[in-house]
Amino acid sequence: MYPNKSINRLLQYRTCLNKFKTLGFNKVFSYNLGEEIGVTPEQVRKDFSLFNIKGHKKGGYDINELLFTINKLFKSNQSQQIIVVGMGNIGQALTQYMNYDESYIQIIAAFDINPVKLKMKFSIPVHPLSELEEYVKKEKIKIAVLAVPEIAAQEMCNKLIETGINGILNFTPIVLKVPDNVIVSNVNLQNEIEELIYLVNFNKR
Amino acid sequence: MYPNKSINRLLQYRTCLNKFKTLGFNKVFSYNLGEEIGVTPEQVRKDFSLFNIKGHKKGGYDINELLFTINKLFKSNQSQQIIVVGMGNIGQALTQYMNYDESYIQIIAAFDINPVKLKMKFSIPVHPLSELEEYVKKEKIKIAVLAVPEIAAQEMCNKLIETGINGILNFTPIVLKVPDNVIVSNVNLQNEIEELIYLVNFNKR
Repeated sequence: MYPNKSINRLLQYRTCLNKFKTLGFNKVFSYNLGEEIGVTPEQVRKDFSLFNIKGHKKGGYDINELLFTINKLFKSNQSQQIIVVGMGNIGQALTQYMNYDESYIQIIAAFDINPVKLKMKFSIPVHPLSELEEYVKKEKIKIAVLAVPEIAAQEMCNKLIETGINGILNFTPIVLKVPDNVIVSNVNLQNEIEELIYLVNFNKR
Repeated sequence: MYPNKSINRLLQYRTCLNKFKTLGFNKVFSYNLGEEIGVTPEQVRKDFSLFNIKGHKKGGYDINELLFTINKLFKSNQSQQIIVVGMGNIGQALTQYMNYDESYIQIIAAFDINPVKLKMKFSIPVHPLSELEEYVKKEKIKIAVLAVPEIAAQEMCNKLIETGINGILNFTPIVLKVPDNVIVSNVNLQNEIEELIYLVNFNKR
């Protein structure tokens, strides 16, 4: 298993490479990428060699080649269909954010406990929670976005795992308890903002 | 300056402490907290001692005391007013997510280039970008949420810094270039999902 941090950095390198490409560059050196994301050139080369990405001595890396390799790595599997549980503000925003035409990741359905949500018009179908298990099994869904209220988070997480989900993007502020074979990625917006406020205020002193 | 990771973990401990408190516990040991967020008990004690938080030998930490101390650390400054630039889906969702009554962090205004957004009804006033500089200076705003389209991100970031903003919560997929005195916190939702998909698929092999 690759270290998660390398995987995360690879995605950050991709962001920079797309920027360089837009600016008209063809070649890039490890120190360019390192400088952009705040790591050493050695770290960049180490990350790349971990994924068998090779540069050209002296000439640096070819941007198109790098992008092709990184994209292949992440999109190697066919298009990915995911679901959202909890169609509140975050669930709605994420659905609109992710479902652009060319995206290989598509949020194909949402589930909510609120009957009002089931009647509202969204870009994707919203089902009652009672249909979750059948849907996930039938469509072989592996990944779910958890965007329910804090109080329902762990219970809903357990339910998702029971149905066969093994990847959860967790937008609730709860630290979820999951078995070893389930991967949770946490996006705690409250903590992000509080950390930022703290750092900004601390910096002033 | 405290290491950012300790600050981030402190916020994670707080999440766990609130959970323990809800479950009726009064005391907690470093290994309880460590287990919850996946670090060693030594790391927990190290983080706490960094912030001068002391436990009681054998008896563990008092949950209410810990919560009080951590909250004091983060809320030591008066209530925090922030702005959102870009009132698209993410901007709207975040505003609704953050602006609950008891929160000491309030998003007090949004800015958008789209005249349609200026006429729409939101829970906070939406101003044209031309008013940004005057507003930030007058209200002494230090922190902004950047939720504009990718293509406008760096330019808008520069503009924010010019007006006096020194903390940016960046929801765009761009790696922003900022001077040393400005702090950027990145929430790259696309990368989060792609990383999760990669890890889930990799795990299956």
